[in-house]
Amino acid sequence: MSSQLKKAGVLGATGSVGQRFMQLLADHPDFDLAVLGASSRSAGKKYVDAAEWKQASLLPTKVADMIVKECTPENFKECDVVFSGLDADYAGDIEKAFVDAGLVIISNAKNYRRAENVPLVVPTCNPEHLDICANLKKQGKGFQICISNCSTAGMVVPLKALQEKFGPITTMIVTTMQAVSGAGFSPGISSMDILDNLIPYISGEEDKLEWEPRKILANIASDGVSFDIIPEEDFKISAACNRVAVIDGHTECLSIKFKQSPPPSVEEVKAALREFRSPVQDLGCHSAPKNIIHVFEQPNRPQPRLDRDRDAGYACSVGRVREDPVLDIKFVVLSHNTILGAAGSGILIAEVLKAKELI
Amino acid sequence: MSSQLKKAGVLGATGSVGQRFMQLLADHPDFDLAVLGASSRSAGKKYVDAAEWKQASLLPTKVADMIVKECTPENFKECDVVFSGLDADYAGDIEKAFVDAGLVIISNAKNYRRAENVPLVVPTCNPEHLDICANLKKQGKGFQICISNCSTAGMVVPLKALQEKFGPITTMIVTTMQAVSGAGFSPGISSMDILDNLIPYISGEEDKLEWEPRKILANIASDGVSFDIIPEEDFKISAACNRVAVIDGHTECLSIKFKQSPPPSVEEVKAALREFRSPVQDLGCHSAPKNIIHVFEQPNRPQPRLDRDRDAGYACSVGRVREDPVLDIKFVVLSHNTILGAAGSGILIAEVLKAKELI
Amino acid sequence: MSSQLKKAGVLGATGSVGQRFMQLLADHPDFDLAVLGASSRSAGKKYVDAAEWKQASLLPTKVADMIVKECTPENFKECDVVFSGLDADYAGDIEKAFVDAGLVIISNAKNYRRAENVPLVVPTCNPEHLDICANLKKQGKGFQICISNCSTAGMVVPLKALQEKFGPITTMIVTTMQAVSGAGFSPGISSMDILDNLIPYISGEEDKLEWEPRKILANIASDGVSFDIIPEEDFKISAACNRVAVIDGHTECLSIKFKQSPPPSVEEVKAALREFRSPVQDLGCHSAPKNIIHVFEQPNRPQPRLDRDRDAGYACSVGRVREDPVLDIKFVVLSHNTILGAAGSGILIAEVLKAKELI
Amino acid sequence: MSSQLKKAGVLGATGSVGQRFMQLLADHPDFDLAVLGASSRSAGKKYVDAAEWKQASLLPTKVADMIVKECTPENFKECDVVFSGLDADYAGDIEKAFVDAGLVIISNAKNYRRAENVPLVVPTCNPEHLDICANLKKQGKGFQICISNCSTAGMVVPLKALQEKFGPITTMIVTTMQAVSGAGFSPGISSMDILDNLIPYISGEEDKLEWEPRKILANIASDGVSFDIIPEEDFKISAACNRVAVIDGHTECLSIKFKQSPPPSVEEVKAALREFRSPVQDLGCHSAPKNIIHVFEQPNRPQPRLDRDRDAGYACSVGRVREDPVLDIKFVVLSHNTILGAAGSGILIAEVLKAKELI
Repeated sequence: MSSQLKKAGVLGATGSVGQRFMQLLADHPDFDLAVLGASSRSAGKKYVDAAEWKQASLLPTKVADMIVKECTPENFKECDVVFSGLDADYAGDIEKAFVDAGLVIISNAKNYRRAENVPLVVPTCNPEHLDICANLKKQGKGFQICISNCSTAGMVVPLKALQEKFGPITTMIVTTMQAVSGAGFSPGISSMDILDNLIPYISGEEDKLEWEPRKILANIASDGVSFDIIPEEDFKISAACNRVAVIDGHTECLSIKFKQSPPPSVEEVKAALREFRSPVQDLGCHSAPKNIIHVFEQPNRPQPRLDRDRDAGYACSVGRVREDPVLDIKFVVLSHNTILGAAGSGILIAEVLKAKELI
Repeated sequence: MSSQLKKAGVLGATGSVGQRFMQLLADHPDFDLAVLGASSRSAGKKYVDAAEWKQASLLPTKVADMIVKECTPENFKECDVVFSGLDADYAGDIEKAFVDAGLVIISNAKNYRRAENVPLVVPTCNPEHLDICANLKKQGKGFQICISNCSTAGMVVPLKALQEKFGPITTMIVTTMQAVSGAGFSPGISSMDILDNLIPYISGEEDKLEWEPRKILANIASDGVSFDIIPEEDFKISAACNRVAVIDGHTECLSIKFKQSPPPSVEEVKAALREFRSPVQDLGCHSAPKNIIHVFEQPNRPQPRLDRDRDAGYACSVGRVREDPVLDIKFVVLSHNTILGAAGSGILIAEVLKAKELI
Repeated sequence: MSSQLKKAGVLGATGSVGQRFMQLLADHPDFDLAVLGASSRSAGKKYVDAAEWKQASLLPTKVADMIVKECTPENFKECDVVFSGLDADYAGDIEKAFVDAGLVIISNAKNYRRAENVPLVVPTCNPEHLDICANLKKQGKGFQICISNCSTAGMVVPLKALQEKFGPITTMIVTTMQAVSGAGFSPGISSMDILDNLIPYISGEEDKLEWEPRKILANIASDGVSFDIIPEEDFKISAACNRVAVIDGHTECLSIKFKQSPPPSVEEVKAALREFRSPVQDLGCHSAPKNIIHVFEQPNRPQPRLDRDRDAGYACSVGRVREDPVLDIKFVVLSHNTILGAAGSGILIAEVLKAKELI
Repeated sequence: MSSQLKKAGVLGATGSVGQRFMQLLADHPDFDLAVLGASSRSAGKKYVDAAEWKQASLLPTKVADMIVKECTPENFKECDVVFSGLDADYAGDIEKAFVDAGLVIISNAKNYRRAENVPLVVPTCNPEHLDICANLKKQGKGFQICISNCSTAGMVVPLKALQEKFGPITTMIVTTMQAVSGAGFSPGISSMDILDNLIPYISGEEDKLEWEPRKILANIASDGVSFDIIPEEDFKISAACNRVAVIDGHTECLSIKFKQSPPPSVEEVKAALREFRSPVQDLGCHSAPKNIIHVFEQPNRPQPRLDRDRDAGYACSVGRVREDPVLDIKFVVLSHNTILGAAGSGILIAEVLKAKELI
């Protein structure tokens, strides 16, 4: 049964994230794009008339002619999975209504990331968190999965690899240099703000970075449907977030401290990162990267323009692993903020759900 | 006597740093640009024929017609002060010869920054280090002053302000986002490397950042001609340096820990930064900034394009002062890398020397 | 009487153009900023609370505390001159009301550029067009002056110099590469649209370029209050407008044909451009540039980042004057789009009005 | 026989163009990369040690270990075709030696573009020019094909489509906005020259644009081995070339005049461009684009970042077709300067040679 095409819906289809979901769903072997939802201003129009398509790939003809629907559960009831690219202002009520109606929602919005019974998933990092959905499904409930914040996504993958091998990480200081595509395009970041410039602030972002890893790297609780979020005192995180003149690809400089003493050596860290494998590879997911983490030896890599598209944007890249004079180890992580950090993760999460027969 | 114009020479006059010295010396009330030195390839030519002038201001006619000289002490013997913009490959031998010949050299090269009896100075931070020159002068010696690395310069100014008020800083983790002008223009950073990109590596830079503050923030030793460099164990620094698509202005995200416990509050830190004054202001130096440090309350400032030119590039700007969940306090510093971080500091150092009658 | 400070108002004070008027009026020797007007959403608030100040210079304290007014003639009746940075959507009605009330308006909006009895002025090109205001004033009327489109401004200055010397230009093909600041900042050009990109289209812009020069280069009509706009068949213009990743400074590649045959030589053209003087220089206007036109011999100049600020942005720069294999002569023009091409021209126009005792 | 893999060599393998040849030859179904040539400084080393690989794709392991050879015909005698990415300083002598030795050279250098018996080819425009190679081959000679200048390449494709349909074009004025990748990376364009800037000059470029179309659009001469280059008086071209802050993709604004009067309408021009087909499509060449020309109706397209990769960079994109008030028709052309404008054209030319059994 799981070999059949699953019917997919997209909420917020005229927006930046919605368009990326649509782009990744076009010609996807597992999913059929069945319903597009947007605001009532767009509803009833052909998609091509409702939206300004901003992707480099041309708008597929089939999609151009689809009629945009209002974002009600009724309109999406045929969908096996619904991807939400809704703004946080709208996601709260709409996504709740969908879950209450028994639907499966994979959301890029921030609203429910900290909610109980909602897995917060980077699919190459913690796909095992999706196992709680089986329990929710058994109870006959709809369920929801949240995609992590784009700047969390790249970072937690190497952290997970290191935690698996060397035990808990107790401290992290991270400074990010984030691409403009993370802010969408209407209006997003103004060119006046980013040419010959950077902005040392992204509203709300540091708070997300200082919280989300503590859920993503947590264990499933004994009830099977929630998470033992790592207490703040066991994993202290300090984040400084910056916007830079890069189209796609978030670059992050991390310094970390292990609980284990003495900490692993630089070579041990690199080996652990290189060897890290994810269940998404064993499940045969279509979008699973060949390498979960690329580790560079060249001192000036990874770079966003050259490395963001490794494994179609589903890999993350690590470079400059070296000793940290203050904590234990420091390194640079790069990941594609709209693939691994947003829409792409949503698609790969859905692939996992399908592989595990949860949709 | 000190009210007379002092004769100034420039070494490496065809290069990027040399040109900036020349630009700042044009119409300077204290200095007369008397001798230009460059490689033997350029020597003997008119400046306009030897160099490609790359500054936004037009090349002054007087300078255009000056004949470039070889970089020998003999050619500069009339100079009260010589500014060196030489590459590190040449600075070692040439600057030594100048000092041995009794000349006063202010150098932007890295060669002698760690040498004994050579002050490493950011003039709005540690101008008192120039006092050792009085002792050297009394001994009838030439002397040399090193300008700090461009990414050190911005950072140490607020550190000094905080150290003065709250005592030693014991730990710092800093991530920099540095402008391309720091790398010069021939070739400097290629456009292919920086458009839609950043480079998470600058050769040798992190080592400088992890060492130079320990000299700049040190006290003069009891011998009056050297420095009690702060031991590494008393001031641990970890740096991660990045090049970004900004023309001028280095932005740095710092997390610091004080020796004092409890540490000062965010408001106390901001007050100390705002109130910080420097001797360069009391000496009446021409280029002394009105504010040594600008402190911003707006969350998205400082930004390089908007704030690098505060007080003609001699001020530094601090923003986003906030508590750090790992260390004590974190904030953002911005400074102009070719003014406070290079040629401008050289000029202001010379102004201090003149004000103190050391030249 | 004309030596007194004139009272100035600014309409659209919270917007991009309004802010630039205010920046140029700060500390201006001729004008006192007396009234700020904006939409009813902002009216009644302190300026600092109503607007996000986006200029590199800090917001003057005096201005920060001014109370924003509604844009009614009553609120501005004390003003000797009112600068309008209103959007075209609002400028039509408001500016008409102001003129009807007997006020003097200098507007950056496009609405009345083609209206009879409204001079369309680039002050270093056709300040003599302001003479019609004397006649309007004599009739006891308020009057209005329109600032040209930003991409027209740079171009018409050398055209005027050549027309004065060699007679009519009959044909021009021009391609522009325009800075993002021309589009304002809310939202203006999105960073997604301009990083590693350009946009070969600016809505409505080509139409303006193909029309405005025919009014600006025209003579005053025999009635003394209107213009003998050059017929299209006597001056054919074809424009192609592009937006590029430059903050400030519009660069334009022009090919032109003279009525005179044989046409002037390259050297004659360069001499005419170099020698061009404007009445604004003889009137002693504060902002009049020392050189109306800078002519470069270096093949790779002018460049926006290096040359846009010549004479504080009131000069225009011309380079690469050479024969055109199709028409007669081709060259490159650069001008600062927010100074000569917008707010700055407004200020200089007001300076001319004051010098001529028209305000 | 033509279904076998052909052995390919690359001259200038460590340089920018050479690397792009190698990237396109990796996994190419027609060619086996057999020999890499570079300067004597690199010869004898493994490729990975001789070159800094600057492409986004990882260096193939097989290539990394290849030993770089000196650029002598002897070292390449096994090659069916040799791609030259040599600098013009070296290409002259080396390429001549290769042709004299009976080899087939496809060169990106400018040296022989104007030579008799050397086709100057954009493969989607004038692949029929390669027919003279059959005659040269019959005479037992080696032969050479030149790839056009990168800024010529995009432009001539729509010109050919229009010439085929509507007869000769007699006049063209073109302004280009060219990507930085065209200048290579060592040093190429400095970041200091292009951030917040453009350069209105590319050395030698305008001369190429004003000449090359007259050969590319010519007919083969009656001797079967040379070309009836269109006389300058029959096809007047004026070019203005600019470098802009775009990584890849040259954008060009063209105004053209037809010999035919009345000229074709805008709609006829668009139809002719859309319908244009090339022999490379019928020959079944691997890299032949599905559409030779994409014609956009959206007013703000084509844009380099969004449209340069259409059909893997082998298509060109045309937009904004409209009447020209001075000549007849104007439009915008975009093409990928390192694919259609350089290395990619070389590969597609080789595919044509193989399909026609000329190698």
